[in-house]
Order: sequence, then C-alpha cells, then structure tokens
Amino acid sequence: MLNFSFHNPTKIHFGDGQIKMIANEIPTNANVLVIYGGGSIKHNGVYEQVVNALTEHTWCEFSGIEPNPSYDTLMKAQAIIAEKNIDYLLAVGGGSVVDGAKFIAAAALYEGDDSWDILAKQMPVKKALPIGAVLTLPATGSESNGGSVVTRDGNKLPFGSPLVRPQFAVLDPKVTLSLSDRQISNGVVDAFIHIMEQYLTYSVNGKVQDRFAEGLLLTLIEEGPKALLAENKEDLEIRANIMWSATMALNGLIGAGVPQDWSTHMIGHELTGAFGIDHARTLSIILPAVMKVKRNEKHDKLVQFAERVWHLTDQDEAVKVSKAIALTEDFFQRMKVPTRLSEVGLSKDNIEGIVQKLELHGMTQLGENRDITLAVSQQILELAL
Amino acid sequence: MLNFSFHNPTKIHFGDGQIKMIANEIPTNANVLVIYGGGSIKHNGVYEQVVNALTEHTWCEFSGIEPNPSYDTLMKAQAIIAEKNIDYLLAVGGGSVVDGAKFIAAAALYEGDDSWDILAKQMPVKKALPIGAVLTLPATGSESNGGSVVTRDGNKLPFGSPLVRPQFAVLDPKVTLSLSDRQISNGVVDAFIHIMEQYLTYSVNGKVQDRFAEGLLLTLIEEGPKALLAENKEDLEIRANIMWSATMALNGLIGAGVPQDWSTHMIGHELTGAFGIDHARTLSIILPAVMKVKRNEKHDKLVQFAERVWHLTDQDEAVKVSKAIALTEDFFQRMKVPTRLSEVGLSKDNIEGIVQKLELHGMTQLGENRDITLAVSQQILELAL
Repeated sequence: MLNFSFHNPTKIHFGDGQIKMIANEIPTNANVLVIYGGGSIKHNGVYEQVVNALTEHTWCEFSGIEPNPSYDTLMKAQAIIAEKNIDYLLAVGGGSVVDGAKFIAAAALYEGDDSWDILAKQMPVKKALPIGAVLTLPATGSESNGGSVVTRDGNKLPFGSPLVRPQFAVLDPKVTLSLSDRQISNGVVDAFIHIMEQYLTYSVNGKVQDRFAEGLLLTLIEEGPKALLAENKEDLEIRANIMWSATMALNGLIGAGVPQDWSTHMIGHELTGAFGIDHARTLSIILPAVMKVKRNEKHDKLVQFAERVWHLTDQDEAVKVSKAIALTEDFFQRMKVPTRLSEVGLSKDNIEGIVQKLELHGMTQLGENRDITLAVSQQILELAL
Repeated sequence: MLNFSFHNPTKIHFGDGQIKMIANEIPTNANVLVIYGGGSIKHNGVYEQVVNALTEHTWCEFSGIEPNPSYDTLMKAQAIIAEKNIDYLLAVGGGSVVDGAKFIAAAALYEGDDSWDILAKQMPVKKALPIGAVLTLPATGSESNGGSVVTRDGNKLPFGSPLVRPQFAVLDPKVTLSLSDRQISNGVVDAFIHIMEQYLTYSVNGKVQDRFAEGLLLTLIEEGPKALLAENKEDLEIRANIMWSATMALNGLIGAGVPQDWSTHMIGHELTGAFGIDHARTLSIILPAVMKVKRNEKHDKLVQFAERVWHLTDQDEAVKVSKAIALTEDFFQRMKVPTRLSEVGLSKDNIEGIVQKLELHGMTQLGENRDITLAVSQQILELAL
C-alpha cells in the first residue's frame, strides 16, 4: 500500500425525507444562494422541500446550470453574490450543479485578476464560499469531494481544492425515482468507471481498497440494470444502493493508498468538449479500449477483476481477462450506453482532432505509469471505433 | 437500507514515516499534553519521532495510561492540564490511550460537579479539548471515532461524543512491527468482532455496507494469522492491511444505515471488568456463543457470511451456517485467542455474577432486536463454558 493522507469531512444525511436537514446544517444568519439546473427540481418535489426547509433562512436562487457547466453561465452568478451579500451556496442537482457551485464558490473569493486562471492556469484556490449539496442524480461523487470540471469554448477543464468540498450533502434516494433511464444509465456507468480508474492499475497489495472497489462494482453491476426495468421504477432499495455506491466511488476512500489511472476520463473529456457527448457515454466507449490496449500492464489486476467481480474460473488467465473485458462491455450495453465511437457518429476522421485536443490540454502522459502517450491514446481511440 | 447521518472528519495520515505530520496538524501556539501508556513507545522509536516532530511546539507529557484505562488514572491528568494551560492532547498509543485521552479531554472542560457523571449518568459532553492520535496498536478504531470506554472499580463504562473524535490520526504500520503476538492477536480479533457486531444482524439490503464489512473480514482472516508467523515479523504490507482494516472497522462507515448488535461487547465488558480478561479475549469467547444462540434470528446473514466470507457452497443452509460458525472459532484459535470461558479459568459458578453485573449496568435488552434479555445472556454464557 502506498502512503496516503485521507480526509473527508463532508457530513452525509442519507435517506427518504432527509432534505429537511439542510435547515440545521446551514447557519440561520447565512445569506444563501440556491443553485440549480434546468428546473426539473420544480417538478419532482425537491425544490418545494428545499424551500420548506429554508423558511428561517434568507435566500435567493440562481438557475440554469447546464450539463457540463459552462464558465460563462457560472460567472453570471457573481453579480448576484455581490448584490445579495451571499455567503453560503446550496447546490441542488446532479454533479454538474455541484461542480458549478464549486467554481462559483472559488471564483467569488478569488483575488487574482481573472478567475478563469483557476482552471486554465490551475491557480490555487485560497478561499471559497461554503457549500452544501442536495443531490438529485447519483453519478459523479462531487457531493463529497473537492473536484470540479468546467467547460469553456469546447475545453473541459478540472480544478480541485478541499475548500470547495461540500460541508454537507443530502442523499435522498427517493428524489432519484423521477430520473430518466438515460440519467440512471449515465450515473451508474459514470460511478462504475470512477471505481475502475482507481482500481484497474497494478497491485500494491491494498486489500481493503481493492475489496471496497470490488464491492462497489458488484453492487452497480447488480443494481444498475435492475433500475432500468419498468417493474422497479418505484424500488427505493435499488436506488439507495446505487446512490450510496456512487458517492463512495469518488469520495477519496477507495483511491487512498493505491495508484490511479484517469486516462479514460481525460480522453472522454475531449469527446464531450468537442462533440457534446454525455460524459458517461464517452467513458463507456473509452474504457474497454483502454483495457484492451493496456491488458499486459494491467494483467494481474484484470485477472483479479475477472475472478472477484465476474466470478470467472477459467484456468487460462488470458481467456479470463478477455471474458472480463467482454462482460464489462456487455454490462455497458445492458445499461444502454454505447461502447464504440461509431455508435455516437464518430469515425476515424475524428481521431486526429481528439488527439490534438489531448496535446493542447497537456494530456500526453496518462495512466498509472504515465505511459499513455498521444500515440497510445490514438491507438485506444482507433480500437474504440 | 436505514436512514443515516455519517460524518467522519478525522484526517488520516497513513504510512511509514508519517509521524512527522503531527507538526503540521497541531497548531504551533498550542500547549500540548502528550499522553501515553506504559512506556513501550520509548523502546520502539515512536516517542523519539514524536519528540522530533514537536520541536516547534510547547509540550509536556502524562504517562501511565493502563489497558482498560481507569478513571482514577485519567483524573490525575487534570492537575497538569490546569497547571500548564494545556489546550491540545496528543494520544500516542493503542485504543486504551486514545480512549483515555478522550475522557481527559471531556473531563477537562466538564462544567458539572463530577466528571464521573459523563460515564455513570451519560451526561452530555458539551466541550472538550482537541485531540490528535498517533496509533501504535491497530484494534479499537478509537483513533477515528468518538467513542471511549473507561473503567472504575470493576465497572467498564462507555461514553461518546463527536467532540472527542481525534482531529487527526497518524497510522504508521511500521510502529506495529514491535508488537507482541498477544497484542497482534488481540488487535485483529477486536477489529474482526467490531465488524461482526455491525454486520451479523438482519438484512436491510445495504449492499455497500455488507460488502465493505465482508471485505474487511476477509482481509483480517487472510492477514491476521500471517502476522503471527515468524517469517513475517518484518512484513510491512501485512501490518498495513491489518492497520487500515482495524480503523475502517469502527470509523462509523460500515455501520451507517444498517442495524447493529453490540451484545458480544456488552457481555465481554463484564468479563473484563470483573476478571481483568483482555478485551479481545472476552469477545472471542462470547461471539461464537451469540452466533449459536441467535442462529435462527441471524439465519439469512449467517448464510451470506458463510458464502461470501468462508466461500462455503453446501446446499443445506443449516450445514453452511454450522460450518461458518466453526470456521470462525477456528480462525480465533489460529489467532491464539480463547473461545471458551473454561480457557480463561471461568466456570458455571461465575455466570450468575456476570449476569448480575449486566443487570446492574442496564444491559437487559441487548442485540439488534433487543431480545437478548438477561436469560438469553445467561444462555450465551453457559454455551461459552
């Protein structure tokens, strides 16, 4: 196991009816900005629950955060923050809304000339407004970590700071019952791949981390397809297990003390930035190709994955690995997400442009061994056609 | 899954050489009291590392915390705290030292007449000195939770508060290389049973919690016996996996959202209080008897335990459960801890007194269903003879 420091102070309130807890978590003397997306929370009862919980608070709202939140949209919040003396942000939505709130929180107190530098130049965040989150879409884990991704002009750029980690997060699985199949699919697949990026590297004998990762993978494999079945549309237990898995997938725990490989995400970000493909659907396309191209380097972990997650017992390890990759693709197909670039209308002609974007963004040495060069990324993209 | 709130803000610094991190974690203007036990830290290099890390700090020390820390010993620290204006406690040791520091921290700022009431009357802790921990014995999980157990006149009483949860904990597996076999055994078994008390109840379909618990159990079953072998005495990976498992076993995570059954601990506490038997060794005696007496109520979870932890494939569920209980006893025997009262010199004649102590301490409705009455506890003790 590698040395690590782990700190996750986000308080979680989990379960049916927990949105009311925001009343206790946000100081009553705070000036709260409620941040949300396209308004779906007004149709599923979440907005009403938030409003009811904030009767003792002073608050106003900022809506219109889009999927892959854009810098331009987020900067519009700054005027309200100044005008209303906002000193607490409450993000109500999925990962995009929480990510957006994080950038708004950091930009509001940024002392440099241009808050775009937080993303473009990775300028350190020294202060940020406090954030709370009411999660409506289990997927990104953003509700209890310090990471955020913001898009500007087709460039999808990450930043991170412990200062933008939500102080608390409400996870009520009931609010996820109104999600569309596409949102459920994307969420489950996004969480699944977050786990894989922290798991499928080389072994450092981190037994707890490996088993926690495998436990989460098994849970998503079992519960994800179930959540898409018509007869399970009201099943709160399925949604609860998916929701808790997605949070645990990226709260820092399973990645503490083990190598990580975020190449699938980094390549995927370029597909979203350039072509607007749903984040999760870029990942389900790229991951199988990464597994195939790096199967030698990741051999031991692929064998473990095959045995513990897919319960494969073949004698021949190569067969076992091939089957595990095929079963992973099959899982994505059952989750109704694409596994090939051709399924989202991309072809060989698009690869050069994607590789150029990777170069532009400095993504020239990806993977746990920093050996996924631009040439290897190109190979991955070609295999994903 | 049950509704829950989960909050664990303890920062973990894990790995070889991490003790130096205490210099960054404790404010330099603090007056620190370093609290430790019998002085083993002076022989294994830990004391020296702590002293080296605190060169910029003002500190003094209080030693002599015994296993099962006594109220009388802990109260002696109060004079130093007053005299030296202590405002930060650094616990350096195992669970007893950390538990002791927690009571010292709460008693120092207790505003009632008698700080014994924190234990005897469960008076709420409203203020406490901040605590950091350098763990030397993985076992209790006390380094990142808010619980503590203190003994006075043969009575072992718990208290808990988020205010006494350590702000940070250093877990350096290297410092555990100097532990005796008995300390390793006790630590592994204590952690194992912490997991079982949060796992072996009835299912609420908490798939993440169950799989995390099973992952920790599997890790301890694999690594515990290895740690006792002469050829592994310098194996840092084994110690690292045990150390991280023991912390994760009782940091609140695997118990969030699931029923719990602390009957083994409550009955075990009486054995330690009255007869001075090592904590873990009371648990290894009591747990198998609890499994046998409550095997009907715990049937489904015992079957799951048999399948997932012991990989049993028998068709007959009753056979599977019996084998799983026998394998658990076998594991304890391989860890060189007793599984019967007779092995620690107790007989039928002692049971009445133990049951009376349970009654005295209000332990009349134990277990996840509150159905372990005094009569059932007596049955458990008789089966453990």
